[in-house]
Amino acid sequence: MKVVDTIPRMSTLVKIFKKEGKSIGLVPTMGYLHEGHLSLVRAASKHTDVVVMSIFVNPIQFGPKEDFEKYPRDLKRDEELATSAGADIIFSPSVNNMYPAGYSTYVNVETLTSGLCGASRPGHFKGVTTVVAKLFEIVRPDISYFGQKDAQQAIVIKKMAEDLNMGIEIKIMPTIREKDGLAMSSRNIYLSEDERKDALVLHGSLMKAEEMIKSGERESRKIIRAIEGMIKSVPSARLDYASIVDTVNLKEAKVLSGEMLIALAVFIGKTRLIDNTIVKGLK
Amino acid sequence: MKVVDTIPRMSTLVKIFKKEGKSIGLVPTMGYLHEGHLSLVRAASKHTDVVVMSIFVNPIQFGPKEDFEKYPRDLKRDEELATSAGADIIFSPSVNNMYPAGYSTYVNVETLTSGLCGASRPGHFKGVTTVVAKLFEIVRPDISYFGQKDAQQAIVIKKMAEDLNMGIEIKIMPTIREKDGLAMSSRNIYLSEDERKDALVLHGSLMKAEEMIKSGERESRKIIRAIEGMIKSVPSARLDYASIVDTVNLKEAKVLSGEMLIALAVFIGKTRLIDNTIVKGLK
Repeated sequence: MKVVDTIPRMSTLVKIFKKEGKSIGLVPTMGYLHEGHLSLVRAASKHTDVVVMSIFVNPIQFGPKEDFEKYPRDLKRDEELATSAGADIIFSPSVNNMYPAGYSTYVNVETLTSGLCGASRPGHFKGVTTVVAKLFEIVRPDISYFGQKDAQQAIVIKKMAEDLNMGIEIKIMPTIREKDGLAMSSRNIYLSEDERKDALVLHGSLMKAEEMIKSGERESRKIIRAIEGMIKSVPSARLDYASIVDTVNLKEAKVLSGEMLIALAVFIGKTRLIDNTIVKGLK
Repeated sequence: MKVVDTIPRMSTLVKIFKKEGKSIGLVPTMGYLHEGHLSLVRAASKHTDVVVMSIFVNPIQFGPKEDFEKYPRDLKRDEELATSAGADIIFSPSVNNMYPAGYSTYVNVETLTSGLCGASRPGHFKGVTTVVAKLFEIVRPDISYFGQKDAQQAIVIKKMAEDLNMGIEIKIMPTIREKDGLAMSSRNIYLSEDERKDALVLHGSLMKAEEMIKSGERESRKIIRAIEGMIKSVPSARLDYASIVDTVNLKEAKVLSGEMLIALAVFIGKTRLIDNTIVKGLK
């Protein structure tokens, strides 16, 4: 495994791989790896000849009051985990290398980014699509892998790749959970022991929603009210949003039908966590 | 010479060229070709193995009151001219192929686009950078060619390619002029016989500015006043803007020094024309 920390070195390697006819898989991450990230690397190493994992805590996707500074970082630990999962290259450029003085180009997906996390985190997705566009240009992957946990991000990036004719296949892999159901996230490290227990309310309320749907409920408002009720019952939890939207256009649905994304963001203490589930074949 | 009118067919050809190790030169145009465009094709055919000329009148770079509908088009004539200049492929996709229903991704260079033509044509450069980003993704050129006549466009596209790590060399080629000095433009076709004569005031006022600078003038205000005076003396002419800016950051300079771009846009009757000159080595 090789660690590459500048764009020119990464570009040189990519040129060599392309000349050799090797396919490239890219797993973009912000590091502090968990099983979710590693499952993407394992998938990539099944499908492609060379697996590149990027590790870059991207400042432009954080709001001014968000956790860019304190976001957990541990490159050494990440290197070991990524290697054991099958990554061939870790690409970890510096912030100055990615955004030199005078940087001014941004990629924005305009329609899918106004709701859900886009409403709570203005400018977040513009930061995400810009950094991913840059990583796509540098690494030129055949396939890139993203986790279903960040459902809106996955849909937005798919749309960007398609709209800009990038010719890159975007694969969305299932959310990986702890044994008790908590979706894996680098931000789980922020949680105190009590908060860690309280955080189960995210997955819990999604399971409650699924149950209601199984029992025939199709009214969005009622399902969301049940989710809100469960979140309210946990003292350290504060709901940011809970929405039921179409998986293609991310528009809110009053009545569930077809394929729906149920997504929520909840503050547990000061930590903002997200989770979601997709329900299919609704009539 | 081959005419390719869909994105998938173009992508397939590009894959073949890349496998064969051929370098690709791209000349993006809106068609209705003149010597300016053809000079770019000739340059491309000197430097690269395969020369692709795109012909696409890009709706999203036109304002609602601009000339998208009436912009001159003549693909048959263009094919002959492009072939004779050395183009191997004309890529002329449809608007629906480039912007299918639900299209929503835009590339924007934020700092260089607020002044000059960006101020008179809000959204214009966002349309330009978006379509060029798409063409770059589809054609994956090694080198792409643009004319100095659209000075701000050239600088903005260079910035985009650099910021997004596209790995594409942007070559800016000199403005090609008619014998009497008028910069070649597809829009010159709009001019009546009288307007055609009046349009000489663009190049004329730039030459006047150059003369003043040669004579030692370094005060921006005085040079611009002289340009304004010349434009005012032509009845069919109305100045849109005349600016003297730094060629790197496009910021207005009060006092000329180093390398300066003198750019202007002038309405001749209803036709908006642009022209510019670069003066170097100013002390």
